[in-house]
Amino acid sequence: MKALVYRGPGKKEWVDSPMPTIEAPTDAVVRITKTTICGTDLHILKGDVPAVVEGRTLGHEGVGVIEEVGSGVHNFKVGDRVLISCVTSCAKCDSCKKGMYSHCEDGGWILGHLIDGTQAEYVRIPYADTSLYPLPDGVDEEALVMLSDILPTGFEVGVLNGKVQPGDTVAIVGAGPVGLAALLTAQFYSPAEIIAVDLDDNRLEVARKFGATKTVNSSKGNPVEAVLELTGGKGVDVAIEAVGIPATFDICQGIVGAGGRIANVGVHGKSVNLHLEKLWIQNITLTTGLVDTNSTPMLLKTVAAGKIEPKLLITHRFPLSEILQAYDVFGNAARENALKVILYQ
Amino acid sequence: MKALVYRGPGKKEWVDSPMPTIEAPTDAVVRITKTTICGTDLHILKGDVPAVVEGRTLGHEGVGVIEEVGSGVHNFKVGDRVLISCVTSCAKCDSCKKGMYSHCEDGGWILGHLIDGTQAEYVRIPYADTSLYPLPDGVDEEALVMLSDILPTGFEVGVLNGKVQPGDTVAIVGAGPVGLAALLTAQFYSPAEIIAVDLDDNRLEVARKFGATKTVNSSKGNPVEAVLELTGGKGVDVAIEAVGIPATFDICQGIVGAGGRIANVGVHGKSVNLHLEKLWIQNITLTTGLVDTNSTPMLLKTVAAGKIEPKLLITHRFPLSEILQAYDVFGNAARENALKVILYQ
Repeated sequence: MKALVYRGPGKKEWVDSPMPTIEAPTDAVVRITKTTICGTDLHILKGDVPAVVEGRTLGHEGVGVIEEVGSGVHNFKVGDRVLISCVTSCAKCDSCKKGMYSHCEDGGWILGHLIDGTQAEYVRIPYADTSLYPLPDGVDEEALVMLSDILPTGFEVGVLNGKVQPGDTVAIVGAGPVGLAALLTAQFYSPAEIIAVDLDDNRLEVARKFGATKTVNSSKGNPVEAVLELTGGKGVDVAIEAVGIPATFDICQGIVGAGGRIANVGVHGKSVNLHLEKLWIQNITLTTGLVDTNSTPMLLKTVAAGKIEPKLLITHRFPLSEILQAYDVFGNAARENALKVILYQ
Repeated sequence: MKALVYRGPGKKEWVDSPMPTIEAPTDAVVRITKTTICGTDLHILKGDVPAVVEGRTLGHEGVGVIEEVGSGVHNFKVGDRVLISCVTSCAKCDSCKKGMYSHCEDGGWILGHLIDGTQAEYVRIPYADTSLYPLPDGVDEEALVMLSDILPTGFEVGVLNGKVQPGDTVAIVGAGPVGLAALLTAQFYSPAEIIAVDLDDNRLEVARKFGATKTVNSSKGNPVEAVLELTGGKGVDVAIEAVGIPATFDICQGIVGAGGRIANVGVHGKSVNLHLEKLWIQNITLTTGLVDTNSTPMLLKTVAAGKIEPKLLITHRFPLSEILQAYDVFGNAARENALKVILYQ
């Protein structure tokens, strides 16, 4: 089969690769029908995630069809259409029993990281019963690819951790795919205002279409002052950090109001300067997190019911065999006006 | 009357001062019978709190007897014994309506800060109905002085914000008075282990008597490694920062386990380096806060019922007229084995 393989910092290759096989009775092998590229894959390619070894097949998102199951798999059979979760869950360890699948002691985020991933014709999924979800009938597969990672991440790590409430003023700093996923799902809780902050006018326009009530272009003037002005000097109830660099984290700590929450979603490569000399007295809450994907069944229902349209996040489509071109587009997202890129076979 | 007055950084004086008077109908004047000194007063004397002007009477803790009430005070009459809250609450603004009295728009922490405080023979208390509490009968007044600030601070900002649960492993970094207040009140929720961390063996011994199950002297070896070893490498569920310097905050971010909480109680004068490059994936929650004192009625009941003994925090007693000697003892707490110092008249 073919797979997209990491060859060390800056290097990747679309190559022939051995077919995955059942290694444990709880494994399934899935034929990928749709996959996508994540910002995290770009981090890996920069060399930011040293746990990824050369030769690793990338990718942790996708939908597909069960090709083979181990003798211990009960929930799925050959031919079933499935959603692959970016997080593998054994369901048996202390973390899983708490619903914190992200820290599963024999799983967590391992696909395209510690084991071969989904940017391939086939993938092996450990603990298939608890790491795959049946696809609901009548829902576009493309939309469901957004539920592997990006939608539960924006929802759980942004909206749920940020405790978005009816009437809240929410700022989403970074209107890329994950920020937009938070923007879509924040609306489950009817906030009064959603302020999108980004450097790129095109993304801010998209954010308006997704439901942002106000936008701030952070490259034009001081974004902290702009948000404070929009909130009568009080700051926001919830600031969702959806980029992962010190500058965007700084915006969040500048705009959070007394009693407010900062929900960090971004993947950070550096430490940040936390202004505790100002914030100690401000009764704020700051959260971090890798997605647990324990909201996936609920999100599947909201998509099936038409409550949100994650398909709006998709801007480009390529056959899986053209994945190198897809990386070129996704890696130059501003130039290409790209959000999520679907790869199909 | 006599009052302890701030004369600029490093200077204070016990002087004759005008008697406070009723300035608004909601005011009361209270004759102080017991007061104490807070670590925050030492911060002010170092010049760390520039909002405190020269000539300000210090102090924000105490119990006393109502001397005079304004025409708008309904809950109290002359002669009533009262507990003074460190936080003044108008009960009418948006923050107060949310129970966030710390950010009262016409109050919050103002005593001994923006208006004259309790280290005096008499003090004026604004919004007396919502900023004073009746003293329960049969409870030692000294114990109740601990409820002005230190006990609700340790409880609300440490234990409640840290969401201490039955079975949790809790670390309290800093076994001074506020850390010990958190240690006392954490036991309401039956954590499995409480690890006290401090530089001072005497304080660690006191922490053991207060209920710590393990202690780590952070001046001997690496405290992060010591706590990780005590927790089988997993880290703690809750780390309560009760000092307010970068070094103790660093211990907290080093020992918090996946899914854990850091509750910052310390008053910080400097920013800290937050290791988001490690913590982004750890599903942690960090909280900050000035005490709201909305737990004061509940804490009064627990003290009246003998569930906790805040009097254990008191190590020294002086007549109010000897407050300068009391500051000398409290300001050299390690040398004097001092925790809280009571001043009486």
